[in-house]
Amino acid sequence: MDRITQQLAFIVEIDRLKGVLRRTSLCDCSRLENSAEHSWHLAAMAVLLAEHAGTGVDIGRVTRMVLVHDIVEIDAGDSYAYDVAANSGREAREQAAADRLFALLPEDQGAELRALWEEFEGRATPDARFAAALDSLQPLLNNDRSGGESWRTNRVNRGQVLTRMEPIHDALPALWPTVLEIVDRNCALGNIGASVVASEPERGR
Amino acid sequence: MDRITQQLAFIVEIDRLKGVLRRTSLCDCSRLENSAEHSWHLAAMAVLLAEHAGTGVDIGRVTRMVLVHDIVEIDAGDSYAYDVAANSGREAREQAAADRLFALLPEDQGAELRALWEEFEGRATPDARFAAALDSLQPLLNNDRSGGESWRTNRVNRGQVLTRMEPIHDALPALWPTVLEIVDRNCALGNIGASVVASEPERGR
Repeated sequence: MDRITQQLAFIVEIDRLKGVLRRTSLCDCSRLENSAEHSWHLAAMAVLLAEHAGTGVDIGRVTRMVLVHDIVEIDAGDSYAYDVAANSGREAREQAAADRLFALLPEDQGAELRALWEEFEGRATPDARFAAALDSLQPLLNNDRSGGESWRTNRVNRGQVLTRMEPIHDALPALWPTVLEIVDRNCALGNIGASVVASEPERGR
Repeated sequence: MDRITQQLAFIVEIDRLKGVLRRTSLCDCSRLENSAEHSWHLAAMAVLLAEHAGTGVDIGRVTRMVLVHDIVEIDAGDSYAYDVAANSGREAREQAAADRLFALLPEDQGAELRALWEEFEGRATPDARFAAALDSLQPLLNNDRSGGESWRTNRVNRGQVLTRMEPIHDALPALWPTVLEIVDRNCALGNIGASVVASEPERGR
């Protein structure tokens, strides 16, 4: 198979990401968001918030990274950040998905994009940390604007949210006061629960 | 208002692009595509098909361009490429939308992104031509994979499709044989009509 045939097969296959639903609503509460439009939002945010990135962050690479960061969900599904059960076995499911999906591409290109996805998952480089910060911030904004229903429905508490938002503290610190304002306001509204006892993710860190 | 407040207002506002429906279906025919997930698909395609771009194309700029290329549709709506009536007044509606939307951002950033959108609309630079080729190719692939319903429903003919695909001939010529194969096959299937009389867009060129 020639390169173009392989590339087109991948392009058509990833259309399925538009059918993977997340737990986050659109800001207007009309429906749940899917992982393709979520990825678009992150890529736009990478461009829009570039000036707040630390030194050593390559926004072009971050943009490519967030464009492919959820592609494995085509096979593995979305794992809600606050759902411990759903996250059990997630890594194995996603590795199997990566094996299948990136193999649709020409070998060099598949390896390059898979490495970018692995880098995102590893959270060890400045680019991956900035991408992770965007991936935390976007659902925070959407949950806030849509009235906090996703937090309420899934009984999420303050400790869990702050743990989930830590990438912002690390890689997008200019946004941290905004995070705290949103979390505090939604705690006061009862959308986010108090965390008297440390939550599972907190203990596990 | 500080820059972050302005940037977050824009980030939240563009969430509405997820609610703008196009005439193209997802490949699995489950529903119509929206402009946010379409923009994600184009950005991924820019990365995936970069090696077929001509000299002078900056894929990073193309990626940013396609991420914002449809944002004006939040106010102006999607104008179906083959609908002459819907395209009447489109430019004025989109300019008004750009006036409102890009003004949400800090002035320098709004001007920069608006210039990128204007460049896309102008189709005069290598980056804009490559972006336009992607914007033609993606719905062709989706219409083909979803069984050609969008072409049938809207009674689109061969001349109209080939006119719409011309950016690919110009800026992504390696894909032109694929375009012809898809168009010919869908003509043979009756999904795309024969164009005995030159269509409106052809005469207008």
